[in-house]
Amino acid sequence: MYYKHQIFFCLNERKPGEDSCALVGAQAGFDHCKSRIKSAGLAGPGGIRVNKAGCLDRCAGGPVAVVYPDETWYTYVDKSDIDEIVDSHLVGGKPVERLLLPPDVGR
Amino acid sequence: MYYKHQIFFCLNERKPGEDSCALVGAQAGFDHCKSRIKSAGLAGPGGIRVNKAGCLDRCAGGPVAVVYPDETWYTYVDKSDIDEIVDSHLVGGKPVERLLLPPDVGR
Repeated sequence: MYYKHQIFFCLNERKPGEDSCALVGAQAGFDHCKSRIKSAGLAGPGGIRVNKAGCLDRCAGGPVAVVYPDETWYTYVDKSDIDEIVDSHLVGGKPVERLLLPPDVGR
Repeated sequence: MYYKHQIFFCLNERKPGEDSCALVGAQAGFDHCKSRIKSAGLAGPGGIRVNKAGCLDRCAGGPVAVVYPDETWYTYVDKSDIDEIVDSHLVGGKPVERLLLPPDVGR
């Protein structure tokens, strides 16, 4: 194991008229998560990596993020959602049920 | 499980003088992998997602890619390395030992 958890945020911007994580707050979610993990001293090898990603191809549920190796997919709205993912899942190891991306959500 | 395997390629370009996946063939590796998976009809839910990523913070071993949920880290040089990762690991389920990123390689 290199990272305990690696969370990938889609930051992709699609064409006008298409669902697009970048247009519904993805950068703010990523920035907040990155900042929370860094200030908690949890970043780096053996800890948590907050990662930028291109399109994860589940755009209809955006903004989306995925936590690996747990393979847990999230949809979030605001900073408090990110706080809950950080505190409960990334730090506490317990997935946040209410923010799970439904399994049938695709592009 | 949404994807059987999701492989993330670092495409990040760092400052001049720093190790940087973008300057050592990352885009070509990504493009070749994406093309191979697509032409094999393996892309999409239940199959394989070839994903762009920002810095994975293991720059000293670049270009790097990571396969999840397997949590397998690779360093590669050329298209034939990518072919081997596709055929052996992504399709066949068997990691390519000779391309594994050593565990102590960081930024």
